[in-house]
Amino acid sequence: MSDRPPATTRADYRWFIEIPTRWHDNDVYQHVNNVIYYAFFDTAVGRFLVESGVLDIRHSPVIGYVAETKCQFLGAVAFPDRVTVGLRAGRIGTTSVRYEIGIFRNEDETAAAQGHFVHVYVERETGRPTPLPPKLRAALQPLRVDAGASAREEKVPAEEGGAEGRHILSGTRSPELGEPGEHGDGECGERRG
Amino acid sequence: MSDRPPATTRADYRWFIEIPTRWHDNDVYQHVNNVIYYAFFDTAVGRFLVESGVLDIRHSPVIGYVAETKCQFLGAVAFPDRVTVGLRAGRIGTTSVRYEIGIFRNEDETAAAQGHFVHVYVERETGRPTPLPPKLRAALQPLRVDAGASAREEKVPAEEGGAEGRHILSGTRSPELGEPGEHGDGECGERRG
Amino acid sequence: MSDRPPATTRADYRWFIEIPTRWHDNDVYQHVNNVIYYAFFDTAVGRFLVESGVLDIRHSPVIGYVAETKCQFLGAVAFPDRVTVGLRAGRIGTTSVRYEIGIFRNEDETAAAQGHFVHVYVERETGRPTPLPPKLRAALQPLRVDAGASAREEKVPAEEGGAEGRHILSGTRSPELGEPGEHGDGECGERRG
Amino acid sequence: MSDRPPATTRADYRWFIEIPTRWHDNDVYQHVNNVIYYAFFDTAVGRFLVESGVLDIRHSPVIGYVAETKCQFLGAVAFPDRVTVGLRAGRIGTTSVRYEIGIFRNEDETAAAQGHFVHVYVERETGRPTPLPPKLRAALQPLRVDAGASAREEKVPAEEGGAEGRHILSGTRSPELGEPGEHGDGECGERRG
Repeated sequence: MSDRPPATTRADYRWFIEIPTRWHDNDVYQHVNNVIYYAFFDTAVGRFLVESGVLDIRHSPVIGYVAETKCQFLGAVAFPDRVTVGLRAGRIGTTSVRYEIGIFRNEDETAAAQGHFVHVYVERETGRPTPLPPKLRAALQPLRVDAGASAREEKVPAEEGGAEGRHILSGTRSPELGEPGEHGDGECGERRG
Repeated sequence: MSDRPPATTRADYRWFIEIPTRWHDNDVYQHVNNVIYYAFFDTAVGRFLVESGVLDIRHSPVIGYVAETKCQFLGAVAFPDRVTVGLRAGRIGTTSVRYEIGIFRNEDETAAAQGHFVHVYVERETGRPTPLPPKLRAALQPLRVDAGASAREEKVPAEEGGAEGRHILSGTRSPELGEPGEHGDGECGERRG
Repeated sequence: MSDRPPATTRADYRWFIEIPTRWHDNDVYQHVNNVIYYAFFDTAVGRFLVESGVLDIRHSPVIGYVAETKCQFLGAVAFPDRVTVGLRAGRIGTTSVRYEIGIFRNEDETAAAQGHFVHVYVERETGRPTPLPPKLRAALQPLRVDAGASAREEKVPAEEGGAEGRHILSGTRSPELGEPGEHGDGECGERRG
Repeated sequence: MSDRPPATTRADYRWFIEIPTRWHDNDVYQHVNNVIYYAFFDTAVGRFLVESGVLDIRHSPVIGYVAETKCQFLGAVAFPDRVTVGLRAGRIGTTSVRYEIGIFRNEDETAAAQGHFVHVYVERETGRPTPLPPKLRAALQPLRVDAGASAREEKVPAEEGGAEGRHILSGTRSPELGEPGEHGDGECGERRG
């Protein structure tokens, strides 16, 4: 029943950015406040999408809405530490991606915090879920940690299926969301959602 | 395998505060950014602890460190909406509490977002986990949603046990953490940790 | 040479909102961090504009860009204090407004902080300065502290003229900015900028 | 009467740090929100103090409280731009320093924003203003832009004198504040700004 992964290390991630801490990242207890770690998460995903040429924040017709995030806090980080954020694609669905993220302090090898960030891709105009654009799917390939996983039919964690079915701003139920078995590689031939 | 609860309503929570949104809570997509919801979480828990007389931020010998948080985003909220945060105690352990939290927009009955916030109580000086102070345990009673649950031996979600065993700043492992069976009501006669 | 006003009191302002503090408003020194006061400023101005029916954040053709802000910190505020923000219109120009703002802690009569916030009104599409919409000019009247001032030709503080001439995103120089003498009442017959 | 300086360039500053923008630095108008610039200010000053070995956030007996800040916004910055913050010491008083700050976007030579940040140095325990520690005064020398200024007796801008007299948390008036000539004993016998 355990879904707690062990503490991750840098080797568990595939793409990295550095984020220096800011004075007010620390709170009254002299460490980076728990809320700020989520700012590291969404900055890493946002930078990845922009740098991959997938997202134009103002104009892209498809944007990501956050369906769910979670973080376990394992060790302290404090200004003026330098944070490195590691990113990998834990699960690539039809209309969503579960990014997995590690937060590393200074030169530490073991994560100070780790978690996930589920992005559901929607049409900017309507908020309706839409299949991942091919350019995104391609950009995600180097972020995958297990190249053999996509072809297998995986059991989808309920929280992601539920999150996708009830995602931000969409009254549309998409019961087929979260069934990864059919999302092959290449061009998303079997577009759904 | 599903651990996804349905969307909660106000009736699912026991203590509430209102938090007006601020201009910069909204992000480029015109909704309250996912990170800000966690600021609602830690403000609600912080206000509860201070208003219950349990926490003096500067002086209390026992303080809470955040071991884990999670949030599912179900509907949008945007400045200038008014947010109501609902709080309940989902699980009260020996040295930790899992608060469960719902975020409600304006007059809505159904949560716009919901999640949890695990606080591990530690000695301020050493960062070592310590049993919940009696005053805290007493203050939590009205926040419990199922008065009969505490006596039952529950399976503890691994992430909470793991988070507690590997909590912030403490190298101390506390193998007895996460076994709720013995935390009775009243004065915590069976103190451990 | 002194441009330092004395500490203001609630009587010096004309429109008020309450903003409860949040957990992470406090910083390592146990007080609300200086940066957060500016979040109080822009939330008060934003709420005023929305509640007056002047601003639709997504759709209004005219929006405000911040040209300048300043704050003096006179006394401490800390979570969980309740902040009241007082607003007045210190100077109403052709295309800009200098809002003056006081921050009050709990029941205190004297400001814990005070400052100003210069908003330049621009066409959303082009970023070019544009005269204040009549609805805004009307909404500002109750915020003025000196009803006789508008008809007088005032010397415009250089920083506001300069800021307006070189305001955000506009390459257009508007030399006439900052000369309040000609903005009469009513419908802004002499539209310029 | 004008106290508006022209737009500054990198050559006007003496010490620099880079701060990458974060996803939620941008607001609904797609630019870095005005509030965040002040986070750049206090991060630059904080890093300067820590890296100079002057400040130990947890333990230094003398810490800085912010008496006043101001910023003019000249051009837009937006995530994912990289910000460079330039710092100089505009005026070094007995118990305070007026830091002057420029915010530069990517490779731009001209400031996107500029302003000041007045720090009053106080005894951590009491909040009373105290003369700048010698180590700080020494660290500030390379940040001064006009080495000849110190020997001149300067008129102290009222806002700084006023701010110092009425600084955070201290009811104590320090009439000698703001008059650099006489800050006597200890190591600062002949030190002037």
